[in-house]
Amino acid sequence: MNNRDIAVGIDIGGTNTAFGLVNEKGRVLKKENMKTPSHGNAELFLSELSERIHQLLVQIQQDGVHGPLVAIGMGAPNANHYTGSIEHAPNLSFTGIVPIKEMMKPFFPENIPIVISKDANAAAYGEWMYGGAQGMSHFVMYTLGTGVGSGLVVNGQVVYGHDGFAGECGHATIVPEGRKCGCGGCGHLETYCSASGMKRTAFELLSKDYASQSLLAKYSLKELDSKIISEAAIMGDPLAIEVFKKTGYWLGIGLANTVCHLSPEAIFLFGGPTAAGSLLIEPTRESFERHLLPNYRNKIPILTSSLHSGDAAIIGAAAMGRSMIK
Amino acid sequence: MNNRDIAVGIDIGGTNTAFGLVNEKGRVLKKENMKTPSHGNAELFLSELSERIHQLLVQIQQDGVHGPLVAIGMGAPNANHYTGSIEHAPNLSFTGIVPIKEMMKPFFPENIPIVISKDANAAAYGEWMYGGAQGMSHFVMYTLGTGVGSGLVVNGQVVYGHDGFAGECGHATIVPEGRKCGCGGCGHLETYCSASGMKRTAFELLSKDYASQSLLAKYSLKELDSKIISEAAIMGDPLAIEVFKKTGYWLGIGLANTVCHLSPEAIFLFGGPTAAGSLLIEPTRESFERHLLPNYRNKIPILTSSLHSGDAAIIGAAAMGRSMIK
Repeated sequence: MNNRDIAVGIDIGGTNTAFGLVNEKGRVLKKENMKTPSHGNAELFLSELSERIHQLLVQIQQDGVHGPLVAIGMGAPNANHYTGSIEHAPNLSFTGIVPIKEMMKPFFPENIPIVISKDANAAAYGEWMYGGAQGMSHFVMYTLGTGVGSGLVVNGQVVYGHDGFAGECGHATIVPEGRKCGCGGCGHLETYCSASGMKRTAFELLSKDYASQSLLAKYSLKELDSKIISEAAIMGDPLAIEVFKKTGYWLGIGLANTVCHLSPEAIFLFGGPTAAGSLLIEPTRESFERHLLPNYRNKIPILTSSLHSGDAAIIGAAAMGRSMIK
Repeated sequence: MNNRDIAVGIDIGGTNTAFGLVNEKGRVLKKENMKTPSHGNAELFLSELSERIHQLLVQIQQDGVHGPLVAIGMGAPNANHYTGSIEHAPNLSFTGIVPIKEMMKPFFPENIPIVISKDANAAAYGEWMYGGAQGMSHFVMYTLGTGVGSGLVVNGQVVYGHDGFAGECGHATIVPEGRKCGCGGCGHLETYCSASGMKRTAFELLSKDYASQSLLAKYSLKELDSKIISEAAIMGDPLAIEVFKKTGYWLGIGLANTVCHLSPEAIFLFGGPTAAGSLLIEPTRESFERHLLPNYRNKIPILTSSLHSGDAAIIGAAAMGRSMIK
């Protein structure tokens, strides 16, 4: 029925690993989830993951899809594109430097390219190959989630830097001596604009305002999440709306700083908080334009990812895999 | 005597235009200065500039240097590498969009490549071809002067962005709602770390401290410059030393933010304030390391330009010209 080719996309997260088979049009044919293990044995994990990928490949054959496997792409925290290793990832149980790419090779035919990079680079590849960034040579992808990640495309190439670790814009300082960051630094964009940064902003506002009537007043720090804040804002809760305004203010500064560096054609935002749409985008755009050098004003759009959020990580990783095909 | 080739380097500044003939080893054979005109007639200016370049070419022939002219490079404020124009430069008398490259062509043989870009890109080319960045594929050049400029090299290419205006890191916001910037923005790096930013810091300290005994207390805002601050610091003036500490603190934040984006192999600093050496570099490095994501720490050197400051702008522009030779 369908003899076109197949790429595997894998997204290794702190808790879950999502993986799937993606056709050359960017459609996910099969996908699955497994727990990212806490046992620290990467060998065992990759063996199980590969086994399950092979099962998916058999399943789509039974469904009548006979396209060959052409590439494997993996997004993972602290993944080094150059070395193919995950290096000292604080949120994974694998310690030290783990040569994931080399360890995956034995499970697949020798001629299949395997690539691993941080998840925000995978997101950039997905947007580039299948989303709103198609045809662009200069664009920026910001991923807003537990942290803030970024993937940068310059002169038609993803920026990996001299050591494979470029594009950590979530750790740019936007408030000198500001909030403590998980990385040990302070004032980093991620401490203000990640989902947990938004929680911190909500608590800051709850602590400062006389706000017991806010819909957010009944949640503990553990209970609160960006979805609750978003829902409260949509219902018109002033404090929740203010959280988005402040988040947008800080995000606008971060994006403007990125533009000073790279002058991209467009900026793409991806992740949970972007589901709030104009609640986040409008204050972001306002702050962004205000912080820009006039040269750059009113010509760089801030767009939300056009990929389906549930599949984007898999699609992006698969797209990254395809980019390695000679 | 010498039949090697010659490139012309031109540095158009707000007040002066420096130009010279540079051999392929990066040595300036002849150089000269002329006033950048205030009459706004770019045609007339380029005609006179070209005439004087041709005179220099005759002079070196008389000196026994018979190398052919191979390229012309020009550094100028608000120069757009893609279009070859100077666009709305606030510090030049030429208004609007001036197609400098096209206007220069008639004065030179048709086969000579002419390139124009902002001066910090020229500085990056100079360092890349003849200075400390030789052989690097990922590095960053910051120029500290009246403003703060930058030239970025990623994957072995200068970053121009989608519109030719990338690399304006001096206009990255490092202090939200901070000092007013000449561009209309606020809190930009340039308002803290340019020569005039240092003056502002000196006046801020003079206003806050009980500091009438400082060597800087006798200067008006108009009189003070970064050289005076530097000399006072070298003589041990505590307030002047504090100016460098604060400048380094802010510069370290700016450089760390650039590293988050690009993870370069090295950062080069160029310009007047760098003459103070460790007075500036030490606090910069300390702040830089402290603001970095741990991944990047202790592996990215901050270096001062290895080019002779008096010739660097000409050498850089000439190197940029040479980069266009097929």
